[in-house]
Amino acid sequence: MSTAPTANPLPLYLLQYESLVRAALIEDLGRAGDLTTNAIVPPGARATGYLMARRGGCLAGLPVAATAFRLMDPDVDFTFHRHDSDVVEGDQTLAVIRGSARGLLSAERTALNFLGRLSGIASATQGLAQAVQGYATRVVCTRKTTPGMRLLEKYAVRCGGGANHRFGLDDAVLIKDNHLVVAGGITEAVRRVHAAVGHLVKVEVEVDTLAQLEEALSCRIDAVLLDNMSSEQLAEAVRMVGGRVLTEASGGITPDTARDVAAAGVDLLSAGWLTHSAAALDVALDVVGLGA
Amino acid sequence: MSTAPTANPLPLYLLQYESLVRAALIEDLGRAGDLTTNAIVPPGARATGYLMARRGGCLAGLPVAATAFRLMDPDVDFTFHRHDSDVVEGDQTLAVIRGSARGLLSAERTALNFLGRLSGIASATQGLAQAVQGYATRVVCTRKTTPGMRLLEKYAVRCGGGANHRFGLDDAVLIKDNHLVVAGGITEAVRRVHAAVGHLVKVEVEVDTLAQLEEALSCRIDAVLLDNMSSEQLAEAVRMVGGRVLTEASGGITPDTARDVAAAGVDLLSAGWLTHSAAALDVALDVVGLGA
Amino acid sequence: MSTAPTANPLPLYLLQYESLVRAALIEDLGRAGDLTTNAIVPPGARATGYLMARRGGCLAGLPVAATAFRLMDPDVDFTFHRHDSDVVEGDQTLAVIRGSARGLLSAERTALNFLGRLSGIASATQGLAQAVQGYATRVVCTRKTTPGMRLLEKYAVRCGGGANHRFGLDDAVLIKDNHLVVAGGITEAVRRVHAAVGHLVKVEVEVDTLAQLEEALSCRIDAVLLDNMSSEQLAEAVRMVGGRVLTEASGGITPDTARDVAAAGVDLLSAGWLTHSAAALDVALDVVGLGA
Amino acid sequence: MSTAPTANPLPLYLLQYESLVRAALIEDLGRAGDLTTNAIVPPGARATGYLMARRGGCLAGLPVAATAFRLMDPDVDFTFHRHDSDVVEGDQTLAVIRGSARGLLSAERTALNFLGRLSGIASATQGLAQAVQGYATRVVCTRKTTPGMRLLEKYAVRCGGGANHRFGLDDAVLIKDNHLVVAGGITEAVRRVHAAVGHLVKVEVEVDTLAQLEEALSCRIDAVLLDNMSSEQLAEAVRMVGGRVLTEASGGITPDTARDVAAAGVDLLSAGWLTHSAAALDVALDVVGLGA
Amino acid sequence: MSTAPTANPLPLYLLQYESLVRAALIEDLGRAGDLTTNAIVPPGARATGYLMARRGGCLAGLPVAATAFRLMDPDVDFTFHRHDSDVVEGDQTLAVIRGSARGLLSAERTALNFLGRLSGIASATQGLAQAVQGYATRVVCTRKTTPGMRLLEKYAVRCGGGANHRFGLDDAVLIKDNHLVVAGGITEAVRRVHAAVGHLVKVEVEVDTLAQLEEALSCRIDAVLLDNMSSEQLAEAVRMVGGRVLTEASGGITPDTARDVAAAGVDLLSAGWLTHSAAALDVALDVVGLGA
Amino acid sequence: MSTAPTANPLPLYLLQYESLVRAALIEDLGRAGDLTTNAIVPPGARATGYLMARRGGCLAGLPVAATAFRLMDPDVDFTFHRHDSDVVEGDQTLAVIRGSARGLLSAERTALNFLGRLSGIASATQGLAQAVQGYATRVVCTRKTTPGMRLLEKYAVRCGGGANHRFGLDDAVLIKDNHLVVAGGITEAVRRVHAAVGHLVKVEVEVDTLAQLEEALSCRIDAVLLDNMSSEQLAEAVRMVGGRVLTEASGGITPDTARDVAAAGVDLLSAGWLTHSAAALDVALDVVGLGA
Repeated sequence: MSTAPTANPLPLYLLQYESLVRAALIEDLGRAGDLTTNAIVPPGARATGYLMARRGGCLAGLPVAATAFRLMDPDVDFTFHRHDSDVVEGDQTLAVIRGSARGLLSAERTALNFLGRLSGIASATQGLAQAVQGYATRVVCTRKTTPGMRLLEKYAVRCGGGANHRFGLDDAVLIKDNHLVVAGGITEAVRRVHAAVGHLVKVEVEVDTLAQLEEALSCRIDAVLLDNMSSEQLAEAVRMVGGRVLTEASGGITPDTARDVAAAGVDLLSAGWLTHSAAALDVALDVVGLGA
Repeated sequence: MSTAPTANPLPLYLLQYESLVRAALIEDLGRAGDLTTNAIVPPGARATGYLMARRGGCLAGLPVAATAFRLMDPDVDFTFHRHDSDVVEGDQTLAVIRGSARGLLSAERTALNFLGRLSGIASATQGLAQAVQGYATRVVCTRKTTPGMRLLEKYAVRCGGGANHRFGLDDAVLIKDNHLVVAGGITEAVRRVHAAVGHLVKVEVEVDTLAQLEEALSCRIDAVLLDNMSSEQLAEAVRMVGGRVLTEASGGITPDTARDVAAAGVDLLSAGWLTHSAAALDVALDVVGLGA
Repeated sequence: MSTAPTANPLPLYLLQYESLVRAALIEDLGRAGDLTTNAIVPPGARATGYLMARRGGCLAGLPVAATAFRLMDPDVDFTFHRHDSDVVEGDQTLAVIRGSARGLLSAERTALNFLGRLSGIASATQGLAQAVQGYATRVVCTRKTTPGMRLLEKYAVRCGGGANHRFGLDDAVLIKDNHLVVAGGITEAVRRVHAAVGHLVKVEVEVDTLAQLEEALSCRIDAVLLDNMSSEQLAEAVRMVGGRVLTEASGGITPDTARDVAAAGVDLLSAGWLTHSAAALDVALDVVGLGA
Repeated sequence: MSTAPTANPLPLYLLQYESLVRAALIEDLGRAGDLTTNAIVPPGARATGYLMARRGGCLAGLPVAATAFRLMDPDVDFTFHRHDSDVVEGDQTLAVIRGSARGLLSAERTALNFLGRLSGIASATQGLAQAVQGYATRVVCTRKTTPGMRLLEKYAVRCGGGANHRFGLDDAVLIKDNHLVVAGGITEAVRRVHAAVGHLVKVEVEVDTLAQLEEALSCRIDAVLLDNMSSEQLAEAVRMVGGRVLTEASGGITPDTARDVAAAGVDLLSAGWLTHSAAALDVALDVVGLGA
Repeated sequence: MSTAPTANPLPLYLLQYESLVRAALIEDLGRAGDLTTNAIVPPGARATGYLMARRGGCLAGLPVAATAFRLMDPDVDFTFHRHDSDVVEGDQTLAVIRGSARGLLSAERTALNFLGRLSGIASATQGLAQAVQGYATRVVCTRKTTPGMRLLEKYAVRCGGGANHRFGLDDAVLIKDNHLVVAGGITEAVRRVHAAVGHLVKVEVEVDTLAQLEEALSCRIDAVLLDNMSSEQLAEAVRMVGGRVLTEASGGITPDTARDVAAAGVDLLSAGWLTHSAAALDVALDVVGLGA
Repeated sequence: MSTAPTANPLPLYLLQYESLVRAALIEDLGRAGDLTTNAIVPPGARATGYLMARRGGCLAGLPVAATAFRLMDPDVDFTFHRHDSDVVEGDQTLAVIRGSARGLLSAERTALNFLGRLSGIASATQGLAQAVQGYATRVVCTRKTTPGMRLLEKYAVRCGGGANHRFGLDDAVLIKDNHLVVAGGITEAVRRVHAAVGHLVKVEVEVDTLAQLEEALSCRIDAVLLDNMSSEQLAEAVRMVGGRVLTEASGGITPDTARDVAAAGVDLLSAGWLTHSAAALDVALDVVGLGA
């Protein structure tokens, strides 16, 4: 396992996530370690574990799960049967893991907690992306992520076929209603932004009304976030924009409503619930064939 | 704000969670910080923010949210209008925050990410607890938590009226199916456990069948986990146990099915989805009344 | 060397202690490193070191010492001649280490500091355990450990044949005199505890008198700590308990007095001095046969 | 409490030790925190604690203990009745602590673990220093310290009236037998050292025989370590040195033998057991007068 | 001192840099602390220090220096006489610091190391910015920063009147020659980029020739980096671009050549030496008026 | 690559610097990683990189650069063509690196930032050392280093043929003007120092005048720092010292003035600019021959 880009087209840096996995294992081991396993399983026992998806969904986090097993047993053999981004049915084998029985049992819950959560996000994203299939609209996530997990959750969104919005407050400008209150209006806010930010920073403005949109379009911006608009408003907004800037719709968009939003012609559709409220995918480890 | 126990009857240690909040703020600020706010909001500007619950639910994480604002602005005034464990309606003011406008806007998302997630867990727990009201059955959580957040998520479960199961692999013994495969049976597994663990460690055994239960009851244990049993099976299991050990039911229990489970007479009802799949509570910050 | 359970029946997690060893090496190397060794020993020189016990005792920490050498020289060959838990005479070879001469000399003190301290604790425990041989009484440690070393010191106690009491404030309840002052009595204290703690948490109560013991026995508890009682009082206490809960004696118990304590019939005998005042075992590294 | 030098003439940097205290508290709190205290003690309860020395000894670590209480309760009032370096009788009040009852009880063990261990080292040092009173010989410690605690243990030695030897491998050169094996002799070893080290680094050579001493004295060195010599050999060595370099005796020196060693006229007397085997001082916290 | 935005229009987050200052102090204190100061200066002594610029330049890092003094002495009084971004003559008082004499002397070098280095960068930037005064060309920095100091060095560039290029590999796309080798050409490289990156990511392409520029301009990009071109080539490039994208010149630009570069009409001028080779500003601390 | 001493006669501990390289890579990767490389370079692509010195100079930091590539790609093949301390011409190949194309491109800037900065320091030192060739005077550095980089910058000075002054405030005493103000004179300051510091600590005194020098020589010290003296004054000072203590000249010494300083006969010549103001060496990575 390496920090180098793998065959996976969606890069994920071991350098960045290994420390998260190590911390999670330590969180679970506590001080005294796995009391149950250490009492019952002899030190030299070997085991084979089948990493299973109990329900269907889109996968994300298999290399993270593999890292959990490897940190407990450096000599573990983790064979991928599926890869991140794959969409699987229920009761599918995702990987087969051979190694120390103690290592497998002690890493199990941590590995599953990462894999279940990330695959849940990927599956939700994939569901939303599927809902808008046929349209050019891309699904994007937000900064409404679990503290400490943003790196991985943004990756899970990409696994599910979504794209990433800002990773943080520092990689693009997004002017929201609260900023407008301070600045006294869109035009002034955008002016202040251009006076301050570097030349490789894009600027997006959140608008609630078509009047605001009109003002925003008179400024030098790269994208507009059309917040909580109806499909009709969105369609009118897209018409007004006329391709001059990117259009992003947001506000309670679900698989049920996504198709109408996409039909309105927006470039992007963002949904915070993908990361803050997606249900985990049901994954499990079946341990069989234990031996010396 | 202190690490000392507060008026809150549910203790939460600043010593333990402050580092999580600091890391989450740094995760969001990235290297360049809040480009938008710094460009638009003058350094000296003051603001008042209303921390709102958009939907009803049970609160958890208000001191954590307060910490986010304080870490950005040590002089911030955070006035609690509600407290953790309170059950609120939608559109309620949870707290009023006065301080640096930049500080408020830059801490907003991090504060909300903690509060929304934890309150989501508390609300789910509270819903499940409510479903079994009138019965002695207690709702408990599992180790299926978000990596790095276990401390806070277990606390959120308590806020919602639930109780905590193991915090990790080290604070109690839970013998599961995989352990039985290795040990060759419940009796032998329990024997090994008693030979190894300290005198203040309790022992619980997971059983799938009444036959297994019978064997478990012949051993010196403290609790049985009755996994994926029907209400009828549970009732029979409770009858067999006859109060000798604690009984815990688990396996896909939802608010819809919880009442039947409780009616079967189990002492505890555990649900992994409380922490891995509860939807976040919709919370927001309304910033108004900005001034110099 | 791995984090996986080794042949050692007493599990110790590299994942948990490697960071302690790394920090200890850095503490000793300071900023400029091993001035003496680097000036005198050529970079390519090889050496063989004999890890010796100068005095007899019970071993604990050999894998920790091995880790110190490995962190300085990943290619070091560390051959165990003895293992943790072994009781050795003086002037015994514990391990033979072959590798970079610089690595051996620079890691020496750190490796010995861990091994000497942990073996000192194991030896003290082993001595106490031996003193009560023939009785069912088990020797247990306390939370009076060196800050930062609890994990390893508790492990050393197990190597010496002892068992572990609480690892911290969070894995069991122990109601002590100070708590009773607040609660106003044992009965009320135990009541509050049961209302608050999870179902897998055991409860022990410290009592100084037989009257207190009587009150404690009327409550739902798992163990009593009989503090600073004479052998006669202990015997009477054991009689009163009648096997209903575990009995633990504590208070200045030494190898000289331990046998009487055990004879009184208590289940457990705890001694803080095992971890806070045990003398280190005299261990050393003899380096010979240096070559290119 | 500050990182600035305090009235204490023995400087100790909060900047350096606060992180150790924080880590020790977290080690004790685990994940779930102080179950007993939180169940029994109401959040708002106040308490007064008397920090006591049960036995007589020399104090070290009071500011460290104070830090433990302050980290749990920032508003705690910690009044010093004694200071580090003070020699006290048994049953003396060292400090009075007023604050949150929960904070006091939860920090108690961590505070005592630091104070007991450090005062044990200070007391041992003070005993050894007292044994050589009247002679110019100074007592010094070694690098045989507890991993992670070197900073504090070296400070404790100073509190006890001792002086510090090297803090690590990098602040002076000490050529030992193993180095001589590689270099092929003292003269060559010293030559290599002078070719390599900076101009502010002192050089000490360990010798086992008077012949070695003679060779060492022919080199440009600052001190000699006379290892495991009898009083007669030491006296002869001191005569040979004739004040040209500092003389340090080491090897199993106890309070019983120290006076003879000092009488031999050595400048320094070093003892590893001060830090690796000194028994902890018996300190305790008496909590009384609890109120709302 | 707070993490909140200060009166300084150039935001710098204490949350981000305090840990750097703490680490730098610990790096300088080592294990034994400031031997000289602690030996000579009584614990209670007070001092006043004048933070001076020995030479003229542009200031950056005064709040960082203040943090060093505050971490050593929380009660220090640090009065700013000048602020970051100010351009000062030589022998100017930048701040007056009153507090513990020990604290002042022990923090001095760390404070000066930050202030000297950052002001050196600000001064170099200010010199380059001055050289292009009258032109619209902005001076920008690169990623050629000191490891670990990027945050502060980028801030210093802003203090000197420059703007920031990318903070890292992740906040914008910059396609360089090595990437072109892999992609087989600009058009294909840009195509791949648009297929992969989020909607708020800008794209810049580095070109060495006007032919490359022509190809770049046929793609959807936001900026071109004109590398190592002569003033004549730059002027021609600017003409070709015709305002369609931003133009950035780079490659060995010094204050002597900057004016010609600006005259060529480029929007931006980047110089790696601002951060990797700028000489430190000569700053010092004059301590006077010591008292009890 | 190992933490053990390598063939390099100038020891550098991977144990100490690996964490700096890891942090620097993470600083550059940010959260989203190398957007450009990941978009353009296929995961499986291989590349060969030539690490080049564009200008001549003295090398320092090649193992550090190698570590950057290895952390991104554990299987990278890094072949040293030159070693630290080598003096090279411009356009020389320093190393050839074969491995993952993504790994090479993503680690490039971090590796170069370390190598360029450290080689700049080594080159400056080497230039100064060359200027005093033929004299016994050694070039030494100061504590005016980049925060966090002292370890590596001191090593770079050694690579350039210089020697190291103090690594921090704790490894020797250097009494400066500010200390004299407090102590009231050199004699008293030195007296206080000897009363306080350990026996392996050397003492140096900074003097500005020959009168101060005279007082200093009457005390028991090891070295004098002759600050800002003319060559004539230095020669007179050296004559006064007469070899009794080491003499160190400091204060604005450049390659131009160094020879006169050395001719005055001082033992040491220290220059802060070696670490705080040396220009980086121009190093680059040429990537060619990419393949699958």
